[in-house]
Amino acid sequence: METNKNDRILLAHGGGGQLTDDLIRRHILPILGNDTLAELGDSASLNLTSSSVCFTTDSYVVKPLFFNGGDIGKLAVCGTVNDLAVAGAKPVALALSLIIEDGFEFESLRKILAGISRAARQNNVDIVTGDTKTVEAGAADKIFINTAGIGVKLDGVEPGMEKITVGDKIIINGTIGDHGLTIISQREGIKFQSQLQSDCAGLAGLTCELFKSISGIKFMRDPTRGGLAATLNEISRGCGLSIEIRQADIPVNPAVQAAADMLGFDVLTVANEGKFVAIVPPESAEDCLDICRNHPLGKKASIIGRVVETRDMPLVELITKIGGKRIVQMPYGRELPRIC
Amino acid sequence: METNKNDRILLAHGGGGQLTDDLIRRHILPILGNDTLAELGDSASLNLTSSSVCFTTDSYVVKPLFFNGGDIGKLAVCGTVNDLAVAGAKPVALALSLIIEDGFEFESLRKILAGISRAARQNNVDIVTGDTKTVEAGAADKIFINTAGIGVKLDGVEPGMEKITVGDKIIINGTIGDHGLTIISQREGIKFQSQLQSDCAGLAGLTCELFKSISGIKFMRDPTRGGLAATLNEISRGCGLSIEIRQADIPVNPAVQAAADMLGFDVLTVANEGKFVAIVPPESAEDCLDICRNHPLGKKASIIGRVVETRDMPLVELITKIGGKRIVQMPYGRELPRIC
Repeated sequence: METNKNDRILLAHGGGGQLTDDLIRRHILPILGNDTLAELGDSASLNLTSSSVCFTTDSYVVKPLFFNGGDIGKLAVCGTVNDLAVAGAKPVALALSLIIEDGFEFESLRKILAGISRAARQNNVDIVTGDTKTVEAGAADKIFINTAGIGVKLDGVEPGMEKITVGDKIIINGTIGDHGLTIISQREGIKFQSQLQSDCAGLAGLTCELFKSISGIKFMRDPTRGGLAATLNEISRGCGLSIEIRQADIPVNPAVQAAADMLGFDVLTVANEGKFVAIVPPESAEDCLDICRNHPLGKKASIIGRVVETRDMPLVELITKIGGKRIVQMPYGRELPRIC
Repeated sequence: METNKNDRILLAHGGGGQLTDDLIRRHILPILGNDTLAELGDSASLNLTSSSVCFTTDSYVVKPLFFNGGDIGKLAVCGTVNDLAVAGAKPVALALSLIIEDGFEFESLRKILAGISRAARQNNVDIVTGDTKTVEAGAADKIFINTAGIGVKLDGVEPGMEKITVGDKIIINGTIGDHGLTIISQREGIKFQSQLQSDCAGLAGLTCELFKSISGIKFMRDPTRGGLAATLNEISRGCGLSIEIRQADIPVNPAVQAAADMLGFDVLTVANEGKFVAIVPPESAEDCLDICRNHPLGKKASIIGRVVETRDMPLVELITKIGGKRIVQMPYGRELPRIC
């Protein structure tokens, strides 16, 4: 069916005049609206509960826009929530900025905004301010989204790589590779017997519970682009210590493993969007695991390794299922473009 | 001269691996670096001087990227600074997010980052966190930039449209239309006898001085997309009162007026990037003007009109130079795409 011109966003919707006003009041506010956003100021006034805050930003260019387990909108909210969550903050407010290609369907925008609204509600954050730009057909690929976020730091929580010491345990809250392999298989039109599903989720509920319950958590990071391999290499370099992980202890959905094998990806380098890596002292590891496993987003949590002495230089080593050892390198970067 | 492949940003620079790390450490940090950004966390920790903050976001898609008086980087910093400034806040920290097309030259990126760095220094804000994404050639137009910003609210300053009353004066800090007509003339390759120059500038120094010195300032907004016409219409609707402005009192650079006349634009609807409109009680108007005129960004400040009673509905009316009256409508939106 041919869509009507009125069903599409036009370049003029970004001009700052009547049409921009219409786009915001008729199409955006009814879905995302809250008292602060409804003021339509160029900035939002916030009275935070503390002056100690975390601040983050992420742009999303994921392709396809809609995928099994989420969409670019849900991803934008969860990704920014997670950056604040792993820093030991409670996410409070998000700013939403859209860059839309002339001709993009209102129907798709509505679906994306609904995804944003749902994810914001689930994660207890408000979209408090925003911006909308349009560009000519061909000057962007449908829609790009930026979310910036403010979180209030949890009292007494100061995670930092410098706190990591030999013997600390490495925990992940579930299976790896789900997001990246879902995206790549949908993009390439590959169908697997078991359908893959992105793990896209906001982690702040679980991380806040962990930080509040376990005082000794050293550091957390979410293994997104570059996967577990990139995150562990960053941590190893950052603290100057080596990391040893056991392949047998890393949870991987069998369908994801099969897809990775078939497509030639190392699942360790594939992006996740609902996972964190936590570095905890050995005496707290089991308590952390218990809290995770009692939470819907941590059912398959696992202690996947430990921090060890460095010999020549900080390295990440994998003990394979058959007992061999291999170095897990920092991925080069070209593996999976536009995964988030 | 053929540029080398190494002179260009590749899709793989956004993959989250070694190349992303290289892009950030070798090309971005040396230009923008500060202690907070150098930590390279997914979020920045900030200890603000108050828990009462303003939060804003803006994406920039301006074309061309470099224009007389600025570039997309300077614009991104100044635009976000100004959104905080007019809200009665002192800008403190910015988050910077780049979406880069595969093949974009490092040389251009360096120039843009230098513009960002200079503008941040001039406006006393730090770039504290960031994100970089890449997309395939053809999926974006060279580079898009998002800046989100946090400002700390000035003590006792609470501007709001609801405070506006009949008799209040309307002040602008200088000439209008400079930014928009510079962009459009450069984009169209039109040369005017006197070269046009964007007014792109960060206003926080001047606005903070005004808010601190004059207690009665009712409201401020920066007339960007949609120009003075859009901003005054927003204010009129927001406060439910009419606005009367005098054409003879609105500062316009003669070269800008000539360009507007030639290209068929109403200068009232053309974007500005270094201007604010302030609504002030009549007894404070002259003091405001004095402060503006003693500041480099307010030399041509002028009282351009006043708030008047509404008859049927809130309207913006212009008293023309020859004494006629015309309604200044909210612009439709298609006048000037990709102006910021």
